[in-house]
Amino acid sequence: MTLKLFELCGTDPERVFSPYCWRIRMALAHKGLEAESIPWRFTEKDAIRKHNSERVPVLLDGDQAVADSWVIANYLEDKFPDRPSLFGGAGGRAMARMLNSWGDLLGASMAPFIIKDIHGQLGPVDQAYFRESREARFKKKLEDVVADRDARIENWHKTLEPLRVTLTAQPFIGGDRPNYGDYIVFGPFQWARATSPFRFLNEDDPVYAWREKMLDAFGGIARKSPGYAV
Amino acid sequence: MTLKLFELCGTDPERVFSPYCWRIRMALAHKGLEAESIPWRFTEKDAIRKHNSERVPVLLDGDQAVADSWVIANYLEDKFPDRPSLFGGAGGRAMARMLNSWGDLLGASMAPFIIKDIHGQLGPVDQAYFRESREARFKKKLEDVVADRDARIENWHKTLEPLRVTLTAQPFIGGDRPNYGDYIVFGPFQWARATSPFRFLNEDDPVYAWREKMLDAFGGIARKSPGYAV
Repeated sequence: MTLKLFELCGTDPERVFSPYCWRIRMALAHKGLEAESIPWRFTEKDAIRKHNSERVPVLLDGDQAVADSWVIANYLEDKFPDRPSLFGGAGGRAMARMLNSWGDLLGASMAPFIIKDIHGQLGPVDQAYFRESREARFKKKLEDVVADRDARIENWHKTLEPLRVTLTAQPFIGGDRPNYGDYIVFGPFQWARATSPFRFLNEDDPVYAWREKMLDAFGGIARKSPGYAV
Repeated sequence: MTLKLFELCGTDPERVFSPYCWRIRMALAHKGLEAESIPWRFTEKDAIRKHNSERVPVLLDGDQAVADSWVIANYLEDKFPDRPSLFGGAGGRAMARMLNSWGDLLGASMAPFIIKDIHGQLGPVDQAYFRESREARFKKKLEDVVADRDARIENWHKTLEPLRVTLTAQPFIGGDRPNYGDYIVFGPFQWARATSPFRFLNEDDPVYAWREKMLDAFGGIARKSPGYAV
């Protein structure tokens, strides 16, 4: 068995930063699985298109290609049932689907703070692609998207309230130990940490303490990966 | 075994409307349990204070009193493990804690649309209490809180996006069948339906179709309960 994972990066192949790829990095570690990382950049569409995907992560398990972080997490859970469960049962798997939606929207809410910094991680060809596609999406120059971020961050903190309340009641979304619910939500934070010096969290926020624990999980794979100590 | 449930109502004891009480009504039905309803009104503090609670729902199981919807759901899951599971395993129970936080905030986001209508369901003594306490919370007259609700509803629809995405992927938050995750989120909708003619959902919204199914669940206990056909 050899697993390989296409992971988004910029000029530095070690600095993988996609929130969706990080969900799977953490899920693989949770299952005690090793996967060879295949660095992938925004404009390398052909490399994954042959595996029927336009986006990363794409997991290769021998001849089989599995795309989309949610699908990959389910694939790993089903393929490796004897290893620690990502979902903790059928109810957890179903309810994690809604956390996945919430986590995706969390990421979307963080983009307007870091989009220019992501651009800064990329080589020239990717930069051109990224600027054009993202400025079309935001209908603004990247510089203008992030311009007032310091003024916006306090209001953004409200976005975290469901997570904050949860983490005052229990150590992890998964209860006493992290599960895929934690990796879903951690993904966007690690995306930000890998690409931007912008500070999202205050140290007195329960979410900060939780993120610290996530950074230390599995031998600190997330903390050791290139990023900003924010 | 006799279960009794203190449930919030106004002038009509049949029109129970607390979102938290509805979570437990649905959870009891899910478990196939009957509970005698004890109608309770905002100003009847003494009736539940002797059971060590300031709020409903309060479940009485013989001599034991259990307060707080989340605690009651966990109590029912543990006390009746052979009946259909509310959480579908340990992972589901842990992750439902975050859905519970999300659902509470959903309810809070709906209050400024219906707060005046809730007032209209109450008798004079409760009305006085409700107006004073809620106007202190909102720092506005109830009439002013709801005044621009028609203009606000379109923006409020964005609140539902994590739910909407989930329900386009699967029939219920709990997967193929509803579980406590669904009851958590349904509670605020039933609260609104029981108290207000205000229309929160468009018929083409996947959330509308889901709410219809929840209204029909368990022999239609939610639909048959007094409310507005919105």
